Order: sequence, then C-alpha cells, then structure tokens
Amino acid sequence: MPRYPGIAQTVSSMEGSLFSKLAHRLATMTGERYPLHVGDTWREPAEGCRMEDLHVADHPGMHRYASPHGLPMLLDGIVARASERTGIATEPGNVLVAAGATGALGATVGATMDPGDEVLLLAPYWPLIAGILKSFGAVPVAVPFIGPVTGPGDVEELLDRYATERTAAVYLSTPNNPTGKVIPGDQIDAIVAWAQTRDLWILADEVYEDYVYSGEHRYARSSAPERTFSVHSFSKAYGMAGNRCGYVVGPADVMGQVRKVSTHTFYSTPTASQIAAARALDGRGAAWVAEVKPEYLAAGSAAAERLGLDAPEGSQFLWIDVAEQLDDRGLMGFLGDCLDEGLLVAPGPSFGPYPTHIRVCYTAVSPDITARGIERLARRLGR
Amino acid sequence: MPRYPGIAQTVSSMEGSLFSKLAHRLATMTGERYPLHVGDTWREPAEGCRMEDLHVADHPGMHRYASPHGLPMLLDGIVARASERTGIATEPGNVLVAAGATGALGATVGATMDPGDEVLLLAPYWPLIAGILKSFGAVPVAVPFIGPVTGPGDVEELLDRYATERTAAVYLSTPNNPTGKVIPGDQIDAIVAWAQTRDLWILADEVYEDYVYSGEHRYARSSAPERTFSVHSFSKAYGMAGNRCGYVVGPADVMGQVRKVSTHTFYSTPTASQIAAARALDGRGAAWVAEVKPEYLAAGSAAAERLGLDAPEGSQFLWIDVAEQLDDRGLMGFLGDCLDEGLLVAPGPSFGPYPTHIRVCYTAVSPDITARGIERLARRLGR
Repeated sequence: MPRYPGIAQTVSSMEGSLFSKLAHRLATMTGERYPLHVGDTWREPAEGCRMEDLHVADHPGMHRYASPHGLPMLLDGIVARASERTGIATEPGNVLVAAGATGALGATVGATMDPGDEVLLLAPYWPLIAGILKSFGAVPVAVPFIGPVTGPGDVEELLDRYATERTAAVYLSTPNNPTGKVIPGDQIDAIVAWAQTRDLWILADEVYEDYVYSGEHRYARSSAPERTFSVHSFSKAYGMAGNRCGYVVGPADVMGQVRKVSTHTFYSTPTASQIAAARALDGRGAAWVAEVKPEYLAAGSAAAERLGLDAPEGSQFLWIDVAEQLDDRGLMGFLGDCLDEGLLVAPGPSFGPYPTHIRVCYTAVSPDITARGIERLARRLGR
Repeated sequence: MPRYPGIAQTVSSMEGSLFSKLAHRLATMTGERYPLHVGDTWREPAEGCRMEDLHVADHPGMHRYASPHGLPMLLDGIVARASERTGIATEPGNVLVAAGATGALGATVGATMDPGDEVLLLAPYWPLIAGILKSFGAVPVAVPFIGPVTGPGDVEELLDRYATERTAAVYLSTPNNPTGKVIPGDQIDAIVAWAQTRDLWILADEVYEDYVYSGEHRYARSSAPERTFSVHSFSKAYGMAGNRCGYVVGPADVMGQVRKVSTHTFYSTPTASQIAAARALDGRGAAWVAEVKPEYLAAGSAAAERLGLDAPEGSQFLWIDVAEQLDDRGLMGFLGDCLDEGLLVAPGPSFGPYPTHIRVCYTAVSPDITARGIERLARRLGR
C-alpha cells in the first residue's frame, strides 16, 4: 500500500499564490513599494484596543484558553449589535466567535457541506471562499453577478442557470470585495427569495458593513434568519486583521455543528483578541470608524478619479479592467511590469472568471504612498 | 431540491461535549470549583512575553495581517530550535506557523488525507485529533497502545492488526496526553520503521516536549524527516494557550499544500501572538520552563501519590481507571457526582475506547486548589 507522498486530491488541485511565482523579483527590488494587493489598513487600532492596553493585572488568565464558543463579554456585545443591526432577535446560541471571517466561513462550510456539494459564488467574490470550499470537498461555482445584474428582475433567471441538484448554498460579499460596489437591497431580497424557494443556505460575507459610502447595506439575515449565516470581522471594521477575530451569526439549531468544526480547526479564538474586540464594541470602535471612514473614502475617491472609475460605494477596493493594456504575455506579464515599478496589485482570476481585471486596495498603505502607487498605475494604463 | 437544514454527514456524526449535558448543573453550583478537566496552566507567561509588553511603537503594524507562512523572526527561531532538537537540517520551507497545534494538525490532515483515508491513533490519544480527522472526512482508528505495548517487539504486530488498504498515517502523542507517559525511544523507532515499511505519514504530536520528568523524548522526525509532521505549541511550552500559536515541521515538498489549507481555515496566525512566541524563543521561554517545570512535577507527583498512581513521566496529566467506583449509571453518573462537589474531570471516552477512565490536569489551577480537588477525588475513589 504505497502511500507516501500522498496529498489530498482536492487540495493539490488548489492554486497556490500567483505572487509566489514573482517572489524572486520582489526579493531583488529596490526603491519605494506600493503593496496595493492586500486588503488591510495603514491605521493602528483605536487606543485602548491595542495589545499594549491589555494588562494581566486587569485580565488575569488572559493568555489562557477562552471558551471555543467565545468570551461571554464579547458574545454579549455581538448579540446586542446583531440584534440591533438586523432587527432579528439574537442570542449567544446564534453566534460563534472565530479566527477571523476566514475561520468563521471555514467552520460554517465544514458544518454544512458534504463533499461534492456546490455553492454558487456571486462573482466577483472574496478569493479565499473558493479555497475554503475546496478544503472541505465542496465545489465553488462562479456566477458573474455584479455588473451583469442590472436589477432584481435579473436574479432568478441568472441563479437558475447555474443551480443543479447538488447546489447547497449561495455566497455573496457585500459591500463587495473586490468591486467596491454595494449590492442593492432589492437584489438582496431577490437572492433571498430564490434561496428560500430552493431551500438553500445563504452565506452572507458582510465584513465591510461599516464601510458604505453610498447606498445602503441590506442584511440577508433580516429576512431569512432560518438559513443565513452572516459573517463579520473586527479585522476590517476596526483595523485588527492581525488579531484574527471575527464571528458568524446563524440559525441556533445549526450553530452547535458549526462549533464542532471550529473546535477542530482552530479550537478557540485568541483570548486577547477577543478582549480587544469587546473593548472596540463599547464605543471606541465606532469612534474609530467615524474617524477613518472619511479618510478611506477620500483615498478611494481620489484613486478612482485618477483612474477614470466611478467613486467607490463601499469596502476598501477598486476593480479595474486592464484588457487594453495586455500583450501576448497576458495578465502575468502586466503584473510583472507593475512589480518592476514596485507596484503590487491583486490578479482578477483570484476573484472569479476575470482574466483581464486587477484589484487595488486604497487603504493598505498611507494615502500618500497609495496616491503615488495609483499614479504609476494610471500612467501604465494610459489614463 | 430540498436542502435546508442539511448538515455535513461527517460532522453530524461527531460527538458534542459531554460537559454540555452537565452544563445546567454547573450554572447553579456554589462553592469552590476544581476545573481539572482542561489542559492549561495557572501561571501567567514570562514577563516580556505578555500582550502588555508588545507596543505599537516597537512593532508598528503589529495588528495587521502577518504572512500566512509565519513572521520571519519567528520562523528563524523555530528553524534553529527544530534543527538543534531533531538533528535534522531545517529550513523555513519545512515550517508552518499555525493557530495552535490544533490549527497545525488541521492543516496537515486537510493537506494529506482524502475522504475515507484511515489514521491509526495510538491510544489513549489527544481528544481533538479524532474530530480533526472527521472534519476533513478521514477516519480515526483507535489502537490501544500505551499500556498494552510493553516493548518495541510488540509494535509491528499490533499496528499490522489495525492497518488496512486505506491506512494513510499513524498519529502519536508523546509525552502523552492523557496518560502522562513518555513513549520510550525504542518504541518510537519501531513505529517509525513500521511506517517506513508501509510508506505512511507520521503525525507526531509533541506539544509537551518541554515537560519530561523521567525518561527521554525521542523525535520521530530525527529518523524519518521525509514522512514526519512534528507538531509543537507555544501554548503548552510557555503558558500561552490563549494566544493560539503553534507550528508544524514537515517535508518541504508537502508544506506548500499544508499552507494552502491553513490559509483557507484560519488564514494567518495572530501577529501579536507570533511576536510573543519569538520573544519566548530568545531565552525567556526556557527560563520560564526551568521555573515552572519543578512546580508542575511537584503538583503531579503529589497528586499521583495521593491517588496511588505512578509518578508522571511527562506532560501535565494523570490517567485513572475508576471502574471500581462506577454504578449502573456508568461514567456519566460518576462525572455528575464529581460535579456536585465542584470537581470537573475529563471523561475517558474522549481519548479512545476507555469507558471507565478519567483524566485530570494538575497544572490548570494553582497547586493548592489542585490539591484540594485531588483530595476530593481520592476520597470519592476510596483511596
């Protein structure tokens, strides 16, 4: 029974990072760099919510395990917030505190998908969702949605076209990563109605809910709490991506199954990160959002204007079709040329069937560095 | 296609916590409690390695994402330590920093197991490994090993008896959780030789490597680096379980696959936790171990003596057969009676086919509380 070096089939079919292929160039680069490819923030978290603010004297045992469910003080804050924002009565039993939105979605997918189950990913989508599904043997099905769908009347026919007997769920990201769009409320309602008719799960990735610049965010859970898993993140809301603390809110009768998977993939969410998140929920986080949101909007609007794009509606990204600038080397050639100028952007194929798109994040580095990076990109695009 | 509320079959077959069934009793309890059921420490981490010691001024961006591979400063420390301890040349490419040993094992299992693959778990075993396997569709096969095996000559015949065409790996925990035994070096060698003959992976859970009180820990990786994944934890070594930072060292050509799964289950390990771990590796951790190890041994030896057991060889646990004290209510009745006295112990069935055993941790609470809890247990056992 020769086994070594056997690798899980689903995993070996997953693509590694495109950037690993360009890593040798990065290593030899000099001059200023413009890392616009990651989704992060240049801001430090609010004072009072940093690791240096969390003292053993105030929180004895703060380096020990927390409950795999979540710290009670944080669960209480999440319950209050979820109830208020969605209008749906929420209990601690509806919630799992998780190792970021990634951990939250992983546990949800692990609990609800059998191998071969298909999930419709409304595209463009957050790149990791496809790999999360594959990690648990489920099948991502990209459905180009943002752009092609011009109103709620388009939704049913589009989703019907991609659904099969194995479809188990529909995943959506709004405010959207990577397009910077906010899916309109009437389209959310149409997606929910379609999922209800077919009895499917809804995975609503709402980690950018606090960064809406125009329009309004509609919570799928507000109208379908029985089938919606809403995924949230302190990473994006309050500049704590490195803390790895997010959460998922879902039907109480299924959350016990979700917690089984989280217990066996990351056990519990870092205790200090949960204390920091609870502190952010006491008002310091909201004050921080009020301060940085105008800065994000200013940086995003300036970048969009320079690139000749619509101003962003939400999230922290711009989405750009660079088809006219590609030569026979394709997108990898374009990425390599950008890299030679110190400019890193995220490749479209990570977000769905988009061989000629790129994504830039306008909040990962300070506005002045972002502006210089965008200037280089604009010139390269002849804009 | 009715789907809701479909649950993953492998997950729905997983057992929830036995304690959840006793939770209502806990809620109404008064008086001192003796939580000897968790594996943790009553000690705070070393000064300089606590969250309050990590300042944004010294580590700008310390709340942002770290590389999914691990912080370079921590990878360097791990590489040096793994090379020195195992005698095997180790590079950053052999290492993944992970969300605790749980995250490390989860990513390793996800990368190496196809659904239906079987893993021999040398029992008694660390409880979460069975659920980790099930989360990824693999099949745990308990092999009663510690106790039945009296020398290296027993190993091949025993493992042959449980191996099938689907066997993909053998998992061992040493120093052992839950028995407090250290698997002798000649038995490790026999396990490795058997795995090499069959071309199987070896999952070596070595999170208690720093807590050996008698005998010597033998690293499987030292003799089989091509097939061994060694799993380690700063949680257990340095009292940082709540930080969720551990690592796995394995064959470089497979670690890329392991990182694919970790990226999609928890993305990256908390940045501040990695800085704390790197600080511990600079000598402060070793000094901490030198201080607490005699305290652990004293608490464990005193508990063992009071219970009429052999002194512990390693780890932080004692393993007790309570068959003589069980009535027709079985182990759950015994656990309930203990709970009525404020005493929590871990049930044997979590660790393999042990319906009459319990595990106690003698490091989770301070030595005086531990001693009072052990006294109650000893009286209940008529010892």
